Parts: sequence; C-alpha cells; structure tokens
Amino acid sequence: MSGKRRIPVKPERMLAELDRLRRIGGAGKGVRRPAFSDADMEARVWLAARMKEVGLETIVDPWGNLFGLPPGDGPCLLVGSHSDTQPLGGWLDGIYGVACGLELARAARETGGPRIACVSFQDEEGRFGGLTGSAVWAGTMAEDAADRLTDAQGITLAEARRRAHEIAEVREVPPKLFSAYVEAHIEQGPVLDRTSEMLGVVEAIVGVRSTTLVFSGEANHAGTTPMPMRRDAVRGFYRFANELDAAFAPLVTERTVWTLGRIVVEPNAPSIVPGSATISVQMRDPDATRLDRLLAEALAVARRVAEAQKLDLSVSIGFTADPVPMDAGIIEALADAAARVAPGRWRRMPSGALHDATNVSRVLPSAMLFVPSIDGVSHNPDENTKRSDLEAGLLALAEAIPQL
Amino acid sequence: MSGKRRIPVKPERMLAELDRLRRIGGAGKGVRRPAFSDADMEARVWLAARMKEVGLETIVDPWGNLFGLPPGDGPCLLVGSHSDTQPLGGWLDGIYGVACGLELARAARETGGPRIACVSFQDEEGRFGGLTGSAVWAGTMAEDAADRLTDAQGITLAEARRRAHEIAEVREVPPKLFSAYVEAHIEQGPVLDRTSEMLGVVEAIVGVRSTTLVFSGEANHAGTTPMPMRRDAVRGFYRFANELDAAFAPLVTERTVWTLGRIVVEPNAPSIVPGSATISVQMRDPDATRLDRLLAEALAVARRVAEAQKLDLSVSIGFTADPVPMDAGIIEALADAAARVAPGRWRRMPSGALHDATNVSRVLPSAMLFVPSIDGVSHNPDENTKRSDLEAGLLALAEAIPQL
Repeated sequence: MSGKRRIPVKPERMLAELDRLRRIGGAGKGVRRPAFSDADMEARVWLAARMKEVGLETIVDPWGNLFGLPPGDGPCLLVGSHSDTQPLGGWLDGIYGVACGLELARAARETGGPRIACVSFQDEEGRFGGLTGSAVWAGTMAEDAADRLTDAQGITLAEARRRAHEIAEVREVPPKLFSAYVEAHIEQGPVLDRTSEMLGVVEAIVGVRSTTLVFSGEANHAGTTPMPMRRDAVRGFYRFANELDAAFAPLVTERTVWTLGRIVVEPNAPSIVPGSATISVQMRDPDATRLDRLLAEALAVARRVAEAQKLDLSVSIGFTADPVPMDAGIIEALADAAARVAPGRWRRMPSGALHDATNVSRVLPSAMLFVPSIDGVSHNPDENTKRSDLEAGLLALAEAIPQL
Repeated sequence: MSGKRRIPVKPERMLAELDRLRRIGGAGKGVRRPAFSDADMEARVWLAARMKEVGLETIVDPWGNLFGLPPGDGPCLLVGSHSDTQPLGGWLDGIYGVACGLELARAARETGGPRIACVSFQDEEGRFGGLTGSAVWAGTMAEDAADRLTDAQGITLAEARRRAHEIAEVREVPPKLFSAYVEAHIEQGPVLDRTSEMLGVVEAIVGVRSTTLVFSGEANHAGTTPMPMRRDAVRGFYRFANELDAAFAPLVTERTVWTLGRIVVEPNAPSIVPGSATISVQMRDPDATRLDRLLAEALAVARRVAEAQKLDLSVSIGFTADPVPMDAGIIEALADAAARVAPGRWRRMPSGALHDATNVSRVLPSAMLFVPSIDGVSHNPDENTKRSDLEAGLLALAEAIPQL
C-alpha cells in the first residue's frame, strides 16, 4: 500500500454544487436537462465557469463534451461522467461523477496534488442515442452516423450540436491527453442500499444479449376449440419461460440477470385462443462466454417448446454488447481506498447498466466507483443517495487517485 | 322408434335461398349484416316475403325478431336462429338455422305436415349486446336495460329498433304460442370437421366462469436489479399459468376448456423488470359444479404463486354464465334422426359458444343441431360448410320433428 496522501477534497463544496445544479432544469424533486436543452447548456456553462475559477482550461469538443484541463505537460487523469439527464430524471445520475471530478481537480490544484482533468460527456441519457458523446469521442461511433441521430421531435444531433460554442471554445480534445479515466456514479440499482454498504468498486460493465421470439399458433374461439386442437401461443410462452428458468439455473451466477420484459399477445381477447405471442428475452452478465451460452440455450428451449406445442417460432437477435472489464490496476487502487474509507461496507460488483466508461475503456484504462441509490431508484425524480455516501465516494477517489 | 314420416323438405331450395341471402350485405366471400343495418332490414324483408308466400303469418316483435306463424290453433314448434351477422361475418352463421326453419315450415305446409313456425331473432351477433333479441323475448333481459344498449357509434337499441315496422306488422309474439324450439347452427369450432362427422347433437350449451388477475410487483432496471431482489410480475404470470395446467389436469374432462387469452404487461419494455401483469382466465364446461371448482382452484393457485413470488394479487370476477342443458326428449329425437341420416358420422357434443337457444331454453323446451365448420372457421369471410353437410342438417331436422 502506497502512502501517498489523500487529495484534501472538501465534500461540503461538492454537495453545495450538486444542490446548485439541481436547480438548473429543476422540476419538483427531479431535473429536466436533456442533451443540448437550454437547461443542459446552462449547466455546462455553469460548470465551465467553476473549472475556469481554479485555472482549468475549458474546452468543449464539437459533440458538446465539456473538458476542464489542468496546466502542465503529459497525459493526466480524467475524472467525470455526464451532466445531461433523462427527460425527467433525478438529481444525481451523471452529475455526481462530474461534481467529483470538479472537486478533485480543484482540490488538487489548490494543494499541489496530481494533475486531474474533469469531463462532462454529452447525451449519455439518449435524447439522440445514448452514450453518444463518449461514443464519438472514443471512436466507437462514426461521426456521420451520430449526426444522423434524431430526437423524438425529429431534430438531428447535427443540428442540436451547433450550440456547442455557447459552452466554451470548441476544439478537439484527443484521448491521448489523458492517462486513465475514473467515473463515479450512483448505482441505479438496489444492491448497496439493501446491504447497507457505502461503496461499490466496479469490476466490469456487464454485456448484453437479447432476442425477440415470436410464437405463432392459431387464433380460435375459446369456447368451441377443444384443448387438444389448440395451437395456443400464450401456452408456448409460459412453457418456454418456465423451462428457461430451469435450463438457466445450472449456467448462471449471482451476477447473471435475465428478463422477459415485453410480452405482446394477439389478438389479446379473453374469448380468443391466442394466435401469437411476442416475447423479449434479455440476458446480462460480466462474462461474454456465459452470455453466448445463455443465448444459445434460450433459443434451444424456445425451439423445443415450439415443436412440442405445434407452434411456429421466429427469432430475431436484438441489442448485443460485450462485457467491458475495468482496468485491474485502478480497481485495486479503488478497492484499497474503499476499504479505508468504508471498512467492511463496500463490495466489488458489476455494473448492470451502461455508462460512459463503456466507451472510454476502448481508449483509456478505465474504472468506476458506485455509491448507493436509495431503494435502487433512478431515472425518476425520487432518485436519491445519502449525503454521507456521496461524501464517501469522493473521499475514496481522493484516496485512490494519488496511488495511480 | 316412431315411424312418422320425414317432412319432405327440398334441400336444393334451402341452398338456393342461402346463396341468395349471401348477396344481401355480401362483401367478398363474407357478409356484413349487423342488426338493423340496411342489409339486415333487407334480409328480414326478403325472409318475410318467403314466409308469406307459403301462407305463414309474418309478425315482427318490437325488438326486430321476425316470426312466421302457421295457421291453426294451439302451440306449435318454433325453428330458427338469427339472420344478423358480425360486422364482417360469414355466410352461414345464424342464417343457416333460419333457412332450415323456413324450408321445414314450407315443406310441412305444402304436404300437410306438422305446424311449424320459423323465427329470425335480432342482434344475436352483438351490434348492441349479443343475443339481445332472444334475451328480451325470453325475459332474461329487461326491456329498459336493452333499450339503453348502444353500438360502437353510440346509437341506442331504442333508436335503432324503430325500424322494426319496415319488416312486417309489429306485434308481441308471446312464447306461449310455441311448444318447443329447435335451432340448427354451424358448429363454429373444429370438432366435427376434424373427425369428418356430419352432425352434432348438442346436449348442453356450456357455462362460463371468468376472472381477471393482476399480479403486481415492482418495475426495476433489468440490468441493475439482481434476480433475488426482483418482484417480477411476468414471472408470477408464467408460474401461475404452469401451475394452473397441473392443478386443472385432475379436475377437467375432454369437454372442459380454459383460456388465458389476454395478457397486459406494464411497463412492457425489454430493459425493465415487469411491474404488473394482467391476465384473463376463462373456463367453460357443461357442468356448473365443475366450473365453480375450477374457478376456486384458479384463484387458489394465483394466491399461492403471488405469495411465493412476493407479488400483490388483485382478483375481479368477470363474465359468468351457467351451463344450459338442452331438452332431453328433443335430444333423443335428434340423435335418432342423426343416426339415420348420417350413420356413424354424428356425435353428441356441448356447444362451446352461446346461441339464441341459451335464452329460449328459459321459456321453451329447446335443442340444437350442429353441422361442421370447415377448419373450424367462423366470424370470418372464410366460414364455410360442405353443401352435403348443410343438407344433412336439414334432413335430420325433417326426420326428428315429426317424432316430437
């Protein structure tokens, strides 16, 4: 364990800034600050001003990603997340990581600590696409493809991002300026809250496999069609779902999740034997090999049930993302720091949701630190985290960063 | 077996009339003749003219039910069904039974056979309510309640039935004018077609029990919510459905059917653990005691699954109808006739759908005879029956009626 001293952050400053930012786009307990909305622009201008105050150079790239760069030469650490929100989101999703980056950069500047840059990526919450700013920045999405993305009103990202210059000087900010990326974020799930833990060191952002299955049978009169003559699509669905649970049991770990979230039945009337049932199957796991095996197993179960129930089956493969492991060195530094800041009240865990670190990890060693979400609530005005947990996250970063 | 001779019907006349009626409201292979539509009025006027031609007195009651009464005193047999159709229905549903009644009454008149009246009930297919004409006529629905029924455009039955006088003289036609009721109808199911049988003697119109179940859990992020922390409403649904099949197995007969026809999931998105699932459960059986037991069992299974899955359960009881047994004497006469007309190619069976006989049986000894529906199709322009089967149904009635 290195003995380099903790960056002397002042958590109360960060908390005051989070309270201030909550009012930019504030709507009741929640916040409306979608990418490139007036509120989003106001928040980014406000953040740029704070960065400038402590001598960071503020630059916005052409995609609206706002950077605060410390003076000096050579690659430095990048800390941040995003400051845009869901159409009606909570007060911490994204901005907590940006506020941590700002306070860490500021405290380091004030006390001669390490060089730290901070960032707020743009459109993480998907007014246009989701993770768009970090995707283009890290080169995982082509610029012309990004520019063609549209919001719900048909406005293109190409059009919306013309406002970037209102935030700061517009210039490319190449990843090579940075040595690594650390993102703090609320968990957006119930694990830390239920276990009364304060910190989660993210080992991997889980991968996703998904498929849409359509069981097709024959819609018939529910009174006149005897059971053996039915080709009941809903029966296909529920037999499939039960057999899937049994088939998955020996293959999964406690970190695997699978969800049948969307069911559409036709014609969907009490007196008609269902003619078709469309089902979404989504699997998430930190291990790509396991994910592939689960997908194959799901399709095998579906085919077996369709045959047994005399149903037709059509399969389409949906959203697919491979797991993204976090950087082993940063994980260990964060784990050491978490053990000191919150002894016995932290854990290693996967991230079940995607974050900007998913993209940034393609170009920089990256890692994430979670703080609890009360009741697991997020993307909702009720989203909240204890102030002591928000402080703990900042302190753990302040402890870990000097060791990197 | 009585030796009274068969009424000398002429099936080719009936088939020609069915072909003619198919063109009144004809739409492709199907027919559009909802109650009190212009096409329905035209068909009833046309039927009234045929009745008059053979010396039947034509009367329409205030609800649009058209009767053709033979001269003479004392109660006589009533034969018929309905001539209205679904918004786009087939060419045989209802009108086949009316055409049989017309040909039987005519052939009996021509040859000094028994006194036979014929009837076309109104609104069987539910522009306003379903079985409305026979329900009011048999006293199972109050007149003021019927008059308040509205169609999809908000037109009341009270308003629509003002056209009754266009059909024939309007007068009450009390049930006491008749001794019994016989209704021929297409099966509207697949049983006779699959077994290549020609005739079905209906023993009972099945009863119905139905309930709507709502399993409620908690909608959560499908990535961040570990499996043991989920309260997944869809999981509640599919566990329930499987356990229901197992629980019903020892309780049902080959005549029992049950259907989970309507499933509504909220929020119904691939990445969200389902927060609620609403399910319709409908059971049909010729035996009321069995139906009550099945409903009780379904609710018990739902409660057990909800508890095991930590879900809330709300239950509402839906459409309920007791089974209606057909008249034993007429059943036997029809069975004897079926055995002579289609030896080895007939069966006793329940009716899984409701018919006007459901209501008429409250005031008159009633029975039904089925002919096959090709592929079990009905309420569809493709609805069809072999001409030889349509003839067989008429001949069986002609054989049975003199024995009543």
